[in-house]
Amino acid sequence: MSAEPRLDALFQALADPTRRAILSQLALGPASVSDLAQPFDMALPSLMGHLRKLEDAGLIDTKKDGRVRTCAIVPEAFAPVRGWLDEQRALWEGRLDRLEDYVLQLMKERRDDSGS
Amino acid sequence: MSAEPRLDALFQALADPTRRAILSQLALGPASVSDLAQPFDMALPSLMGHLRKLEDAGLIDTKKDGRVRTCAIVPEAFAPVRGWLDEQRALWEGRLDRLEDYVLQLMKERRDDSGS
Repeated sequence: MSAEPRLDALFQALADPTRRAILSQLALGPASVSDLAQPFDMALPSLMGHLRKLEDAGLIDTKKDGRVRTCAIVPEAFAPVRGWLDEQRALWEGRLDRLEDYVLQLMKERRDDSGS
Repeated sequence: MSAEPRLDALFQALADPTRRAILSQLALGPASVSDLAQPFDMALPSLMGHLRKLEDAGLIDTKKDGRVRTCAIVPEAFAPVRGWLDEQRALWEGRLDRLEDYVLQLMKERRDDSGS
């Protein structure tokens, strides 16, 4: 998957409070689907829908062992989201640095002018 | 707005490649709507729809001066997204630390047993 559709899927997957709560739960350790169903007090089909969306985005892995499906978080899947946020910060910090340089240059020119 | 609906709106706003590109453009400095329309080669109503979504999420500010509407990024609006990612990282790093403590404890017990 190229970067852009992957970012779409990641942000989309994170744009729901239940899915974010599932991720916070799984950050504490892997859990079976029935373990997850209990605290979220949610019909199994809805829960499965959320899990599928998280798995499609690569944020969780699921593994079936007999009748039990276990879900685990994929911490490195968050990296593109962090990467994108870091790029944005670099862009606007670069702009602030250029603004600062410009102001310093103006001040220097003014000083030079008044000194001549 | 409480934290949860705000995070929903933020992640939702970021889940679109055009909106992310608009933010990257605005990270370089404020721009008018017609400035933005040019590189994105997009019908004005679609662009306005994206801008409204970004403004509703608090990621940009727009200001109308006569016939020109200027858009500016709101860098601090990204903070809840970063904050949520940092919380997740703290959760799973805490889990790794506990796992490590547990393994060290097991190793110590085994050493003590074989030493006695």
